[in-house]
Amino acid sequence: MSRTTVTAAYDQLIAEGYLETRPGSRTRVAAGLRPEPAPAGAMVPPQRLSAFGERIMAMPPAAEPPKPAIDFRTGDLAGDDFPALAWRRALNAVLLRRPARLAYGDPRGLPGLRAALQAYLWRARGLSCGLDQIVVVNGSQQGIDLCARLLVDPGDRVAVEEPGYGAARRAFCAAGAAIVPVPVDDEGLRTGDLAAAGRARLAYVTPSHQFPLGGVLPAARRQALLAWAEGCGAMIVEDDYDGEYRFDMKPVEALLSLDRAGRVIYVGTVSKTLSPQLRLGYLVVPAGLSDAFAEAKRLADRQAPGLEQAALARLLEEGGYERHLRQARRRNAERRTALLGALAESFGTRVRVAGAAAGLHLVAWFEDVPAEREAAMAAAARAAGIGIYPVGPLYHEAGARPDRAGLVLGFASSAPDTIRAGIRRLAAALDAADIGRAPASVRTN
Amino acid sequence: MSRTTVTAAYDQLIAEGYLETRPGSRTRVAAGLRPEPAPAGAMVPPQRLSAFGERIMAMPPAAEPPKPAIDFRTGDLAGDDFPALAWRRALNAVLLRRPARLAYGDPRGLPGLRAALQAYLWRARGLSCGLDQIVVVNGSQQGIDLCARLLVDPGDRVAVEEPGYGAARRAFCAAGAAIVPVPVDDEGLRTGDLAAAGRARLAYVTPSHQFPLGGVLPAARRQALLAWAEGCGAMIVEDDYDGEYRFDMKPVEALLSLDRAGRVIYVGTVSKTLSPQLRLGYLVVPAGLSDAFAEAKRLADRQAPGLEQAALARLLEEGGYERHLRQARRRNAERRTALLGALAESFGTRVRVAGAAAGLHLVAWFEDVPAEREAAMAAAARAAGIGIYPVGPLYHEAGARPDRAGLVLGFASSAPDTIRAGIRRLAAALDAADIGRAPASVRTN
Repeated sequence: MSRTTVTAAYDQLIAEGYLETRPGSRTRVAAGLRPEPAPAGAMVPPQRLSAFGERIMAMPPAAEPPKPAIDFRTGDLAGDDFPALAWRRALNAVLLRRPARLAYGDPRGLPGLRAALQAYLWRARGLSCGLDQIVVVNGSQQGIDLCARLLVDPGDRVAVEEPGYGAARRAFCAAGAAIVPVPVDDEGLRTGDLAAAGRARLAYVTPSHQFPLGGVLPAARRQALLAWAEGCGAMIVEDDYDGEYRFDMKPVEALLSLDRAGRVIYVGTVSKTLSPQLRLGYLVVPAGLSDAFAEAKRLADRQAPGLEQAALARLLEEGGYERHLRQARRRNAERRTALLGALAESFGTRVRVAGAAAGLHLVAWFEDVPAEREAAMAAAARAAGIGIYPVGPLYHEAGARPDRAGLVLGFASSAPDTIRAGIRRLAAALDAADIGRAPASVRTN
Repeated sequence: MSRTTVTAAYDQLIAEGYLETRPGSRTRVAAGLRPEPAPAGAMVPPQRLSAFGERIMAMPPAAEPPKPAIDFRTGDLAGDDFPALAWRRALNAVLLRRPARLAYGDPRGLPGLRAALQAYLWRARGLSCGLDQIVVVNGSQQGIDLCARLLVDPGDRVAVEEPGYGAARRAFCAAGAAIVPVPVDDEGLRTGDLAAAGRARLAYVTPSHQFPLGGVLPAARRQALLAWAEGCGAMIVEDDYDGEYRFDMKPVEALLSLDRAGRVIYVGTVSKTLSPQLRLGYLVVPAGLSDAFAEAKRLADRQAPGLEQAALARLLEEGGYERHLRQARRRNAERRTALLGALAESFGTRVRVAGAAAGLHLVAWFEDVPAEREAAMAAAARAAGIGIYPVGPLYHEAGARPDRAGLVLGFASSAPDTIRAGIRRLAAALDAADIGRAPASVRTN
């Protein structure tokens, strides 16, 4: 070994504190170094979790099922729908700008993106808000989590739709909320039942297209909801997760636009319009809460990624976002038509469809299948390579659900032909498993 | 107006619930619609924050100073250093892949990125860990916040370095921790003082390059720290925020590689190697905590953005990341040399430099300036267009700080010439303000 190598090794050991040197003495092993690692059998105290950690580990785990060949999972989009070329152009243009320095900015997000969102929300949703009311977040889930962190203490009552969106319920549960399920019907949240829910700290709602049942909250219920919130000092989280998709007319106005009292926090996202992989969403918060959300976002992760924010701003400013949205609406309208047609063809009047006027999923109620058979349906479908998702797990309280089986069918991720083939295979699989018909021996005679 | 327009307007009003139709009757305004908005003078209950919200709003606000012409702020990088071409190529290659469907994946992050990080950590830092121990996060701040959420309950003791990194301290304060500052010297955390800190739930440390004082924790202290954690069942968060930058030799081994008891959570980031704007970092967590971190990340924001994860994986796999890192090290070594030279030239022995062996900042102690004058120094510098950042605010307890003034000087965001000009202007500005010398009347005689 060369002298240089040895000297470098010594230097490294000295720098890391393994060797000590003193003027006039020999280099020696540093004092205090433990000669042996801890004995392998040593008792290690378990890694204790916080109350938050205990709560999230006590929830039923979020299932990650194997990917079936044809999948009706809600939230997924078709890869072909992503405007890869437009996004690449926007990113490349942004990358050419080369700012003088790379630093953190306003935790609410790039001013340019917030201005573009402000204009978009006005154009597309009739929403009027100040720049600082907009907080860019990493998808709607972060928006909901920030609401839970900032507004909910352990033990606080949080009203949620029954059935409702599981990931939001989990966020409030993790914050220690006492979940108060409020029933939903074909028109969304039954606001008449809110009073029975008692004084809640917050209500989480999906008024544009109730998840999962698909009702659109009528104007009178919107006013009742706002009046309830004003009355008991509750905040309302309005999750507008797919409000851009309305097939027969223009999107319904947001609840926020009726709010005069600063009780509504609006949650928007591009997960259903561009891609869930982008992790970009935004909140519109009451002006009085803007600083609190900014500090919470800064503490959570400083700010949303800069390049992607700038790219989205560009897409919004240049009209590319809305051009893409028009195309996505058209494609999803075709998929919806294919799904409705296939359901009618394969199941006829056995299936009642709900919630298909808007959004990217619908609910198929199987009038002749008891609720208890939902798991068997999913298993039979899975064996045939079809992913279907029963409505049951979306109820907070099992007793609240209807007695017949229902499936939440997302249609945004497959081509119309695939959707048709999927429903035919589903029908055949249910048939083969004797689900929802008279037993085969009777039927074939 | 055409009949079609009127019909469409009616349909929209019916869909939104403003009008009601019944078979055989005329369309009419829906029942229950409140004719008037809430009176403008109505008392609105204030928007009440959670305990978490109250805690973050009670902290001194994170200052966002106006950007000076020459800025020595730590954490910022030069825009020119970002490998825009390599990043664009990586992103474009990833965009061409067009997956069949866009869906959420493992909240720990893309398996491909975690495999690339696993290999990198082994190559570059001598760290060996399982794939599921790696959790991709939105920068180190989210990693620290997840640690606080999962491991700290209100009232728990959390040991932090004194002085230390403010954003980490804020995250633990926000979780309700009782902060226990442990003194730091030129070799980092004084582990001998840990016992006096009592039973803590967690310790947050920067052993590779203490922030801000720059000490590198010697091996004996590392072992003492681990033994302390094992003894009292505490977890250690090792923030390796700039461990890649070591100017005279290869980076020091991570504390994690000495951990036999699963007490260390390692926090890595590309904020100092690529860009703070990317918001990409990663945790290496003990195997027993992998599921808890995965669930917490899923709840916080589902997962890190997919395109950027895939682009970083590609950069790591193809060697582009380490090629860039070698160049960044070279550039930053030049900047460091420029800063050290300029400080010596302008201030001579009046300034003692600490912590310059590693990282992207150093501390300049002004031996002849009392600590109380730090604010005046910053103001005089700011008036001359120079951004400098006193060490004082990084102490949790004001009484713990030395009696002389210190500046934390980040050098990663400016060219060597700019750094030299900045220090000269700083010296002139301090001189003009009579800071740190005998009064001008005496000196000039």
